[in-house]
Amino acid sequence: MTISPLALPFPALPAIAGVTIGTACAGYKPWTRDDVSLFVLAPGTAVAGVTTRSLCPSPEVELCRFRLPGGRARALLVNAGNSNAFTGAAGRTVALAQSERLADLLGCPADMVFSASTGVIGVPLPHDKALAGIAAAHAALGTADWLAATMAIGTTDTFPKAAIVKAMIGDTAVTLLGIVKGSGMIAPDMATMLGFVFTDAAVAPPLLQQMLTESAARTFNAITVDSDTSTSDTVLAFATGAAGNTELASRDSAGADAFAAALTDLCRQLALLVVRDGEGATKLITVSVAGADDDAAAHAIAMSIANSPLVKTAIAGGDANWGRVVMAVGKAGQRADRDRLSIRFGTTLVAADGAVVPGYDEAPVAAHLAGDQVEIAVDIGLGEGRARVWTCDLTHGYISINADYRS
Amino acid sequence: MTISPLALPFPALPAIAGVTIGTACAGYKPWTRDDVSLFVLAPGTAVAGVTTRSLCPSPEVELCRFRLPGGRARALLVNAGNSNAFTGAAGRTVALAQSERLADLLGCPADMVFSASTGVIGVPLPHDKALAGIAAAHAALGTADWLAATMAIGTTDTFPKAAIVKAMIGDTAVTLLGIVKGSGMIAPDMATMLGFVFTDAAVAPPLLQQMLTESAARTFNAITVDSDTSTSDTVLAFATGAAGNTELASRDSAGADAFAAALTDLCRQLALLVVRDGEGATKLITVSVAGADDDAAAHAIAMSIANSPLVKTAIAGGDANWGRVVMAVGKAGQRADRDRLSIRFGTTLVAADGAVVPGYDEAPVAAHLAGDQVEIAVDIGLGEGRARVWTCDLTHGYISINADYRS
Repeated sequence: MTISPLALPFPALPAIAGVTIGTACAGYKPWTRDDVSLFVLAPGTAVAGVTTRSLCPSPEVELCRFRLPGGRARALLVNAGNSNAFTGAAGRTVALAQSERLADLLGCPADMVFSASTGVIGVPLPHDKALAGIAAAHAALGTADWLAATMAIGTTDTFPKAAIVKAMIGDTAVTLLGIVKGSGMIAPDMATMLGFVFTDAAVAPPLLQQMLTESAARTFNAITVDSDTSTSDTVLAFATGAAGNTELASRDSAGADAFAAALTDLCRQLALLVVRDGEGATKLITVSVAGADDDAAAHAIAMSIANSPLVKTAIAGGDANWGRVVMAVGKAGQRADRDRLSIRFGTTLVAADGAVVPGYDEAPVAAHLAGDQVEIAVDIGLGEGRARVWTCDLTHGYISINADYRS
Repeated sequence: MTISPLALPFPALPAIAGVTIGTACAGYKPWTRDDVSLFVLAPGTAVAGVTTRSLCPSPEVELCRFRLPGGRARALLVNAGNSNAFTGAAGRTVALAQSERLADLLGCPADMVFSASTGVIGVPLPHDKALAGIAAAHAALGTADWLAATMAIGTTDTFPKAAIVKAMIGDTAVTLLGIVKGSGMIAPDMATMLGFVFTDAAVAPPLLQQMLTESAARTFNAITVDSDTSTSDTVLAFATGAAGNTELASRDSAGADAFAAALTDLCRQLALLVVRDGEGATKLITVSVAGADDDAAAHAIAMSIANSPLVKTAIAGGDANWGRVVMAVGKAGQRADRDRLSIRFGTTLVAADGAVVPGYDEAPVAAHLAGDQVEIAVDIGLGEGRARVWTCDLTHGYISINADYRS
């Protein structure tokens, strides 16, 4: 596996008070690497989550959705190498059995155990391996660090992905730390995206959920690698409260805005790491849209551009093919007026008022496209709607990876 | 340019009474091939059309939309190598000038001239070349055959595409003949899809429009190469009436059903030829969906499967990866119940009731996928909605073609 040319180094990460980690090898595939990760959380830890909008979700996703309204978590367990999705009654049985076995080991209600699985679709998680894996990870509690855990949740990832942000809540410093795996929120079916955020802040569960939902809309839900939505995408946030701040109870609580900003910052960093590991990616592309009817329209137009195979192959080839951007705006299904449209690559205005700008010089655009970070900005010229999304280019690497992944 | 492995031979095509063809080289690109095609139509010819749903259409598309309600055509002119799209006032001026010059040459109202242009976006059609090209094609009237015309409307096509169907209206034999260019209805921005149908039948314009709209919904609008919708897609149908049948005036006219069936047959043949020339295509994929809430839901699910890069790369690799089909059903946004879903590849039932079938044998599926025509059938298990769409696989060829098309 070649490491993505867009990879970033793994950051230095401290322990988060209230979180203990253990990893183990259940052997879901014929490998010796750890593939079960266990995160035990202090009593009282708040939990929030967002899950895939797929209508064919995995049983782990269904369990998360069922348990999230309780608002409290004692453990997170993650299986890598097998997504347990589309496995019928057998899949549901093993997902439930694994979380109940862990609840027994920890002496907590099963409804406080959250789980996620990632990997091949259609093969039930092997029952014996799943239970033995949990027992081994439990026995190893306290021996694993964040890097080990991040490696253990990965599948086709080419580098381990994590980020950290600090914030002040009143006089209390709190830490928000996240790990993530996958090659897209809208992603390959086996490299489904999982993201986990841990903080020592004290945050009431309903507020944590509100803030996570808002952050995800502008970060995880604003990235795309290949327009394909997985059956298992899950982002969970855990707040142990060990930092000792006065619990954030509402958006009006002192420090809530700072925490929300830090959470969005963290989620954006994690989301961009996923794009940086997009299958076959060689360029990170930022698509900004302004002047649409409203923010939702701007998001739809931005996603139409970011999901266009023709735009993505043009960027891969270093081709300032703004005609393909026009095409993607036109097919987005949102109100647009060809004769008010303007397009920038980097800082260069390429087209305005429905035509290429007079005396357009492609040289600075070609120089911008030769780099590994490309910015496309479109102004629709109609309203105040804005959005920003991120994607990567579409290369031979994507085809090579996906034309024979399963074998 | 390598000819698509899915190419079909060009059929033997007769003249259509009431249609005279001339082609010429305007030199829209530095080439010597003909790139202007002129089809002069007998007085009284009925016309109908469907155009791209892009909100950034070319001026030629706008002219067609403006003129179609008139219902009568005397000429069709097609420019290849330059789409004239997103060219502002200059583009509108040259499109109008070209059709008005042709109207002068023919002595007919400009509103009876229909035009289409295909090629690079963003460069106005050169005014002098456009007018000289029309004059040359007019001077060449009667010297070109269907093959010459089909070659002259092509851009990145790897083979010329045409089809023919005959029908009986009462005792009168009529011929429907179509030519098409492009690599997808939902297509590369420069190899935009154009399709033209010519018949000697007499059909009232409103009925011709109704029948073309219905046929296109099940044929041209049911194909996808890469999910990208062009700014110039246009299908026009011309009925000269030279066959002498009693004019078809409504769906209740004797022979109208036979003509509609022939028109749909012809459009499907033309649409499939476009998929067969899909950029990089090595396999023709038929996706059938049954059991959805309604036909529209079934179409949306089928398109979600047909547009999934992961499904298309799996087929390219000969991988019976039905998990990716589950993923695509799940992301389609239509009602689905994971536990009622069944999936077939070819004639083999792979998954049913939310899980792989007991004793599933991949061997017959692998054999099916090794061929160049692949069938994926999904039953949602909820209702009576049905749809069928066509696409091709996604290969290294697509990346190679599109990562440096413009240069």
